[in-house]
Amino acid sequence: MNQPMTGGGDTELGVQKPLHDGVITEVAGGVTAPKGFRATGVHCGIKAVKKDLALIFSDAPAIGSAVLTTNKVQAAPILVVKEQLAHSRAFRAIVVNSGNANACTGNRGMHDAWETVEATASTLGVGRGEVLPSSTGVIGEYLPLKALLSGIPLAAEQLSAEGGRAAAEAIMTTDTFAKECAVTFFLDGVRVTVGGMAKGSGMIAPNMATMLSFITTDAAVEPDVLHHALLRSTQRSFNRITVDGDMSTNDMVVVLANGRSGAPPVRTNSGKAYNDFSSALERVMVKLAKMIARDGEGATKFLEIEVTGARDEKEALTAARSVANSNLVKTAMHGGDANWGRVLAAVGYSGIDFDPSQVEISFGNVPILGRNYALGFSEEAAREVLQRPEIRITINLNRGEGEAMCWTCDLSKEYVTINAHYRT
Amino acid sequence: MNQPMTGGGDTELGVQKPLHDGVITEVAGGVTAPKGFRATGVHCGIKAVKKDLALIFSDAPAIGSAVLTTNKVQAAPILVVKEQLAHSRAFRAIVVNSGNANACTGNRGMHDAWETVEATASTLGVGRGEVLPSSTGVIGEYLPLKALLSGIPLAAEQLSAEGGRAAAEAIMTTDTFAKECAVTFFLDGVRVTVGGMAKGSGMIAPNMATMLSFITTDAAVEPDVLHHALLRSTQRSFNRITVDGDMSTNDMVVVLANGRSGAPPVRTNSGKAYNDFSSALERVMVKLAKMIARDGEGATKFLEIEVTGARDEKEALTAARSVANSNLVKTAMHGGDANWGRVLAAVGYSGIDFDPSQVEISFGNVPILGRNYALGFSEEAAREVLQRPEIRITINLNRGEGEAMCWTCDLSKEYVTINAHYRT
Repeated sequence: MNQPMTGGGDTELGVQKPLHDGVITEVAGGVTAPKGFRATGVHCGIKAVKKDLALIFSDAPAIGSAVLTTNKVQAAPILVVKEQLAHSRAFRAIVVNSGNANACTGNRGMHDAWETVEATASTLGVGRGEVLPSSTGVIGEYLPLKALLSGIPLAAEQLSAEGGRAAAEAIMTTDTFAKECAVTFFLDGVRVTVGGMAKGSGMIAPNMATMLSFITTDAAVEPDVLHHALLRSTQRSFNRITVDGDMSTNDMVVVLANGRSGAPPVRTNSGKAYNDFSSALERVMVKLAKMIARDGEGATKFLEIEVTGARDEKEALTAARSVANSNLVKTAMHGGDANWGRVLAAVGYSGIDFDPSQVEISFGNVPILGRNYALGFSEEAAREVLQRPEIRITINLNRGEGEAMCWTCDLSKEYVTINAHYRT
Repeated sequence: MNQPMTGGGDTELGVQKPLHDGVITEVAGGVTAPKGFRATGVHCGIKAVKKDLALIFSDAPAIGSAVLTTNKVQAAPILVVKEQLAHSRAFRAIVVNSGNANACTGNRGMHDAWETVEATASTLGVGRGEVLPSSTGVIGEYLPLKALLSGIPLAAEQLSAEGGRAAAEAIMTTDTFAKECAVTFFLDGVRVTVGGMAKGSGMIAPNMATMLSFITTDAAVEPDVLHHALLRSTQRSFNRITVDGDMSTNDMVVVLANGRSGAPPVRTNSGKAYNDFSSALERVMVKLAKMIARDGEGATKFLEIEVTGARDEKEALTAARSVANSNLVKTAMHGGDANWGRVLAAVGYSGIDFDPSQVEISFGNVPILGRNYALGFSEEAAREVLQRPEIRITINLNRGEGEAMCWTCDLSKEYVTINAHYRT
């Protein structure tokens, strides 16, 4: 710890120290990597040409849990998911449309969300209470419900155990690439898989904003334990990324666990089985979170902000978030300008208490600021680091052992272009 | 109150209801409009060509007061001003350099700031304790002290009662125009003047960031009363603007009151004399604050965010600030996109408690969102309003009588260009 000056700018970025180590292996397949899940993505006519309707189906009832936006303005699907979760913990399907977010649409929005749920349930032959809806895209416009409903039978027909990729494509909005990943590990000798998909890409802060993620696993997990693991992993993944500080009305992370691996159930919030499962879940969610940061609107560079030497993890995270949210830091990184003063200023207004003269800052492996404002770094070395597509900024507060990391992207003209005319 | 839908988008923007009414008249002259003040701006060699050193001089000892940055990282001049104010309340001069901020420079920065104070004092023949220093520009680089010191005798020679404009020019950094104004009013039949100048233009939030303002008045005001009026006016002016949410290490607002008008002293924090004086002070500071918002880096539009119908003023201000700081709102306004959903979402994550279905939003005089998410506005009318260089966004929460206003600008590609290569 506390050695950011020797921390490797050359090593892989984004390797957060895992809470628990286990043998976790990446595999292909996204949400359809775990046993007993099928999925697809189709074009139903909300967008002009691209896929705009994703469906995930579990062959067996799956325990479900979700983390939802904390925005006071909550989209209809968020309210419906809340209600579904209040009445049941076993689910069969997730239906997601992109292109139009069904948010801020009052009673009609609620009606449309329930219609989507009912149509999906009857098409798939499952209960109305077993379907979770989600929606992303422009907010404030009514859902083209007819188009959406017409796509459901089509999607149901095309469900396949290889459909994870198509589903990941169908939830994209301004994303430039589909985001999915999956990992396996062994529980009592039985192979268990966790898969996931996500979409960004503007906003994404303060807490997992304009962000959807759907996670599947063939592990068997008790409802409360699943929720515990989901909350912890969300804190260490989606809540560590920021693109522009805005937070949306539709964000959700949903996990379904169908038990089809045949591994023994995870029954408690501690112990080896829990640790192995939650580490795998965290690995998938961190990987998706970093993909979102990397694909922030207009992003040309991935930024990792690491704060060490804080009083505790909370303080480290507060400082890291303040730097990650600074437009001035993000534009400087865009321009490859080693403007450490903006980094220090952003820590300064983060609200934490610290002694500025004790701070050390490095960009990649280049020490930029030493204690007592010691400068003397090589502008050339800094420039070299700042030309790279991935930049780690390390800030050592030199006052404790707390550390935290968060991820963001640079702020480019392209961000402005994308967001100046989003609706039109 | 509570009638934003009929509020005039056609009337002048930024007319905040004054706490007290009095006959206040605008006059020319900036900081040299009040009696007994002289000023100038010269080029001393910190910048390549433009003026980079401003000097304000009072012919008589003036009561001084200041509001300083709350950033934990405080520039050397901030620390020196604090020390000067702790030992005295009577001052003769303010010396400000632009082009290099003397921040984050440790002991050498402190030394340079005191050297500047001493050189100014000895050149002007006043006490070391009677000079207030200030500094703006790139942070983290040592002050070119030799250049700065060489400019002081030059500035002292050129001090003039018509020098307010030159001083305002000499404190500019990325500002595109010099910011100054002055007003007069009568105290017991005697004409009193308040003048001021300011510089922006990035950052400027959460609290008066990267922002300098110097106010002069020939009123006679007791030290505590002056400070009371300054604090109140700052809350209602510079703390109501935001450009990009960042807060700098060097911000300060200083006021000097030299009593040369001959009007009777303002001795208490209430009563007609106080109200008249503080209204004039507020008028100058609000005008300067709005100039700063208008001149935000890369700004093409001035935005006024007005929240009405809040539980109280604090709640209204929280909501207004959240909207004003939203990159997504600011880019939508840049593009002329009537994206009211982003406005509502920004209120949603501001942290206040409210019922989204009761919110009304208008852009200028065009109602965009009614209660219960009633839409049906004319995109054409909205587009017309959004093409204007000044846009008012009014948000009625419909839950009380509290209201507040704040000011900002749109977010353009030019902002990115300016800030991607600021140091180079």
